[in-house]
Amino acid sequence: MKLLEERIRADGQVKSAEILKVDSFLNHQMDVKLFRAMGEEWKRLFDGCGVNKLLTIEASGIGIAAVAGLVFDCPVVFAKKGKSRNLADDVYSTEVMSFTHGGMNTVLVSKDHLRAGDRVLIIDDFLANGAALDGLLDLVQQAGATVVGAGIAIEKAFQPGGARIRARGCRVESLARIASMDPETGVVFC
Amino acid sequence: MKLLEERIRADGQVKSAEILKVDSFLNHQMDVKLFRAMGEEWKRLFDGCGVNKLLTIEASGIGIAAVAGLVFDCPVVFAKKGKSRNLADDVYSTEVMSFTHGGMNTVLVSKDHLRAGDRVLIIDDFLANGAALDGLLDLVQQAGATVVGAGIAIEKAFQPGGARIRARGCRVESLARIASMDPETGVVFC
Repeated sequence: MKLLEERIRADGQVKSAEILKVDSFLNHQMDVKLFRAMGEEWKRLFDGCGVNKLLTIEASGIGIAAVAGLVFDCPVVFAKKGKSRNLADDVYSTEVMSFTHGGMNTVLVSKDHLRAGDRVLIIDDFLANGAALDGLLDLVQQAGATVVGAGIAIEKAFQPGGARIRARGCRVESLARIASMDPETGVVFC
Repeated sequence: MKLLEERIRADGQVKSAEILKVDSFLNHQMDVKLFRAMGEEWKRLFDGCGVNKLLTIEASGIGIAAVAGLVFDCPVVFAKKGKSRNLADDVYSTEVMSFTHGGMNTVLVSKDHLRAGDRVLIIDDFLANGAALDGLLDLVQQAGATVVGAGIAIEKAFQPGGARIRARGCRVESLARIASMDPETGVVFC
């Protein structure tokens, strides 16, 4: 998606060959008009797929998914990160490795909000190792719902998550796919 | 706001005299069309106040604020919860007591995204003791920016936060104000 690639070039900060800072428009300050354009692009890509629910994970996926939910005209559920101590019977839960903070997070969704028959589009800001996406796919599977695909803002295509998850048969539509990046020369898109 | 009060009556679950569960439409599954109506109501209430930025706090404020940002046509910043260990020089930070999880959270905003001259509307899902709102007000003050007011979805008016923060001179517009509630008889609005 040209608009997002241009914005990454203009306002993204390449901190290293692996770290891209986009907190001026994506995951700290949010350009919600850009989010609407992203939602419209996912709507075009997944048109006719019968999506009736968007699913994301706290925290930085929530704003993108909420605005996309207006475009899709459907409810948006965000999976919550918690400790395993208080797991109730009425939730689906899974474990997700956090590369940012280290350690494992328990991620959960209430059984009331994810059901067999739901046709779910997963939304997230980044896809790198794919740990968060694996966790969300697991939650949807536990519910007996169908994953229509995943709409990702920025995929670090030089990391293994995207290839691995596509190989599982999940359709992944990333609006910007980064082949490589470098603090000196910037970002190269696929 | 009649629409929100009706929704609380219909889908909110009063768990005790203090605990209201609204996770089917507000803070786990999100009814983003309701959020748009809420944004339009805050826009009407704060019309002419020169709001140029919305500020909220992760996680459950983000979806509401992102959709409201479309209505206000301005960027939305969410304060991040973190540990104090990694505090950089380029952030404003404050400590917020969490009544849900217990203990203190460090809450921070990048200095790049909150500046003197900003006219900030704070958005959050709940106002009870007012700890989160105190923290956000502190962050805006550190930045030398102006708080236009706070737009709250649900105020537990039987808890002290709202009265205390209004007494500080901050305009608070809560779309549903709960005077009392009871698992048997439901919610009484102010």
